[in-house]
Amino acid sequence: MSNEQDLGITASKEHETGDWYAQVVQKAELADYAPMGGFIVTRPRGYALWEAIQDHLDGWFKDSGVQNAYFPMFIPESYLQAEKDIVEGFDPEVAWVTHGGYDELDERLAVRPTSESIITPYISQWVRSHRDLPLRVNQWCSVVRWEATETKPFFRTKEFLWQEGHTAHHDRSDAWDETMLRLDQYERLYTDVLALPPLRGQKPEHDKFPGADTTTTLEVLMPDGKSVQAATSHYLGTSFAEAFDITYLDENEDERTAHTTSWGLSWRALGAIIMTHSDDQGLVLPPTIAPKQVVIVPIWQQDTREEVLGYAEQIRSELAAAGIRVHLDDRDERNPGFKFNEWELKGVPVRFEIGPNEVEDEQVSVVHRPDGETAAEPRENVAETTREHLDTVYAKLYAAAEQHRDENVREAESREEILGTIGQHGGYVKTGWCGTEECEDEIKDQIAAEIVLVPGDEEPIHDSCGVCGESAETTAYFAKSY
Amino acid sequence: MSNEQDLGITASKEHETGDWYAQVVQKAELADYAPMGGFIVTRPRGYALWEAIQDHLDGWFKDSGVQNAYFPMFIPESYLQAEKDIVEGFDPEVAWVTHGGYDELDERLAVRPTSESIITPYISQWVRSHRDLPLRVNQWCSVVRWEATETKPFFRTKEFLWQEGHTAHHDRSDAWDETMLRLDQYERLYTDVLALPPLRGQKPEHDKFPGADTTTTLEVLMPDGKSVQAATSHYLGTSFAEAFDITYLDENEDERTAHTTSWGLSWRALGAIIMTHSDDQGLVLPPTIAPKQVVIVPIWQQDTREEVLGYAEQIRSELAAAGIRVHLDDRDERNPGFKFNEWELKGVPVRFEIGPNEVEDEQVSVVHRPDGETAAEPRENVAETTREHLDTVYAKLYAAAEQHRDENVREAESREEILGTIGQHGGYVKTGWCGTEECEDEIKDQIAAEIVLVPGDEEPIHDSCGVCGESAETTAYFAKSY
Ligand SMILES: [Zn+2]
Ligand SMILES: [Zn+2]
Repeated sequence: MSNEQDLGITASKEHETGDWYAQVVQKAELADYAPMGGFIVTRPRGYALWEAIQDHLDGWFKDSGVQNAYFPMFIPESYLQAEKDIVEGFDPEVAWVTHGGYDELDERLAVRPTSESIITPYISQWVRSHRDLPLRVNQWCSVVRWEATETKPFFRTKEFLWQEGHTAHHDRSDAWDETMLRLDQYERLYTDVLALPPLRGQKPEHDKFPGADTTTTLEVLMPDGKSVQAATSHYLGTSFAEAFDITYLDENEDERTAHTTSWGLSWRALGAIIMTHSDDQGLVLPPTIAPKQVVIVPIWQQDTREEVLGYAEQIRSELAAAGIRVHLDDRDERNPGFKFNEWELKGVPVRFEIGPNEVEDEQVSVVHRPDGETAAEPRENVAETTREHLDTVYAKLYAAAEQHRDENVREAESREEILGTIGQHGGYVKTGWCGTEECEDEIKDQIAAEIVLVPGDEEPIHDSCGVCGESAETTAYFAKSY
Repeated sequence: MSNEQDLGITASKEHETGDWYAQVVQKAELADYAPMGGFIVTRPRGYALWEAIQDHLDGWFKDSGVQNAYFPMFIPESYLQAEKDIVEGFDPEVAWVTHGGYDELDERLAVRPTSESIITPYISQWVRSHRDLPLRVNQWCSVVRWEATETKPFFRTKEFLWQEGHTAHHDRSDAWDETMLRLDQYERLYTDVLALPPLRGQKPEHDKFPGADTTTTLEVLMPDGKSVQAATSHYLGTSFAEAFDITYLDENEDERTAHTTSWGLSWRALGAIIMTHSDDQGLVLPPTIAPKQVVIVPIWQQDTREEVLGYAEQIRSELAAAGIRVHLDDRDERNPGFKFNEWELKGVPVRFEIGPNEVEDEQVSVVHRPDGETAAEPRENVAETTREHLDTVYAKLYAAAEQHRDENVREAESREEILGTIGQHGGYVKTGWCGTEECEDEIKDQIAAEIVLVPGDEEPIHDSCGVCGESAETTAYFAKSY
């Protein structure tokens, strides 16, 4: 068995963020590194978080007319090339299958990097009449992008899990509503489930999804001051429908071209949760997605063992019956201090400590994982009290993340101010922007910050571009980015 | 819009089974063929059936200590080769990734054909003490096997969806119990959910999973007299644990080698459902997994439209509130006959017909999909009555499948009798068997039937081998196989 030093986190979140993150992921048993660079093994504690996200999103998708499907993991090279016609900058950063068994294939197959080019031709076949619209399919799958960067579990991996939704609609208005509906659902996930209040907006023209009319995005600020693209929803206009011939007969039997959308959320969401909420003791999880919401640690001597364990088991079963995910850690071979550390490391949001005093007083001692706050609560109505504590823990995580975000949106009106503010504080700097890529490049070249979003329709906050001084078209949010 | 002729099934199940099956799959909108041979696109109606199977099995797995995880879809060639040490006949019928982007990889990566060789080394890392056992992980994923055969959706595809469970245990007894528990759960799925009573047994020695001590199997008989391997559960002994070094310290701090299992069920289960229950009108589904269990078809003239639709909607909402998956087909542009055909084709188990007479008599007319049996039922307690009808439909499907299976297990005592019986009737022929592969080959060479299972521990039904006449060691079930 490893010693306790090995078990705990030894790096500091504030000063060694990268090492600290890698330790939390591995020591909380969320993921391990795979033998091939760029790949990870998602362990049960990590995969359970992905399942929790799936449960929420998948239910909302189905309630709003989405059906799941499954398309092949391989895409023929010629299909992928077909996208070249509609997008500039097609770049095959993909894994290529060239052989099946001992034989070389006639045509190379790409492991899907995203599935527009194989899904859209089928949508084209399935849509004939206006009655076939809207048509909405989604798949939960993994995709592979052969980008050579350092592996960072859930943030940067060559293979990652995600969902990709693909829809076709009668017209621009319906497709735009769909684009917004999915962005709303992603925002709801981050706000109500992951305790990560996002910023919401669009990508600049030159940073849109290739072929898209509009790419809308959520951005979440990490504790190190960098922004994470947390989900995207694309209004694709008619470009894919024209390239892959999605037409339909309207009520008057006239042929019209459909408008399409696509939208996706990946396991980066897990990276954002881990990175934001966790601390130097290990993983911290919102109770909404924690596999175990409450751990009960009994504290006894030989003569009090029976009554303490009996009382703890009663409470465990009462919580379980109320639908609370609870674990009673009744291991004999570990002392309470070891158990406290272990469950803090693994991110259980609420701990109950139960010893002879609690039994006698008909109470439980409650400890909140994020901040160690304690409370003594009556045994009576313990399930209801527990729910309130879980809500309180959620509210604490949310408030901290919201405060961090709000404190880190700053304004700047000149090139020097943009560079200085990001250099000193990180976070977001908003400024007027003329809309040209050159002005973004000037900042990017000097400090590796880019425009992570522009608000939708609002007036620009300044009259002139913070970089070049020309007339501003919109507000731009600059930030360093994952 | 296609004409009605195109919409319906035009091939006969009895006389053109292959064409008929392909038509049911495509016209009931379960799947389409992909552009690459050997791959299919699983459409929402097909994928929903897979989700229904997942819902059942995944719940049972989790209730019995299994946790889901996700391992990389690629396996380095050297890892796959490591299996060579424990298995004869390693054959890389896999898809090989040789390039990432523009660069050739240093080591080829196999798209996983099964994941023992990547999962077992991690289990080895995670297991230290006897307290870490049993360790059980499962993943729902797709795998690729590059076998060049004609594509048959859900039965024969290069990529297929499945789950693979991998477990490690203290000793033979625990691992054997696990092997049986998973086979029990698969049997429960086929018996209680899919209305496909299976035969249960083991594979002969020479047909075991490579490296396994024992391969246990479920076999389901198709209407064309061929058997489908419906699920397998392998007791792997210590061979994988030795090859990948899964050892643990027992209570006395002695090092011991774990015993492992693996078990899987693929979307062949969907093929077996479709093939067995469906008919010349199209898809037939057990109500347990049908996405819609009841379709309500209103029948009205202009002057009765409002009252009929109102009555139908009341019933729809009452059924929905009771948790029954119901659809009211209120399309104006289709007549009832068209709707009957469409929902028969798509396999809705129970149809309600509601016209002015039903409204007046406060009744519903109920039609069973499998056999067209009709009943008039009172409006009162309609949800309860519906449940009884759904149960009855399930029982009909189960009884038909059970009868087909029982009528098609025949005995034979000689080579000629084995060949003649399978040639004439298909199905299973059971006979005494000496245990040699040569005796199986004799039958296989002549009539392409093989030994699909042997019972576990029972005495052989005959004293001598039906092929060679030597002393019988066990009973063998010969059948042609998918
Ligand atoms: Zn500018
Ligand atoms: Zn023999």
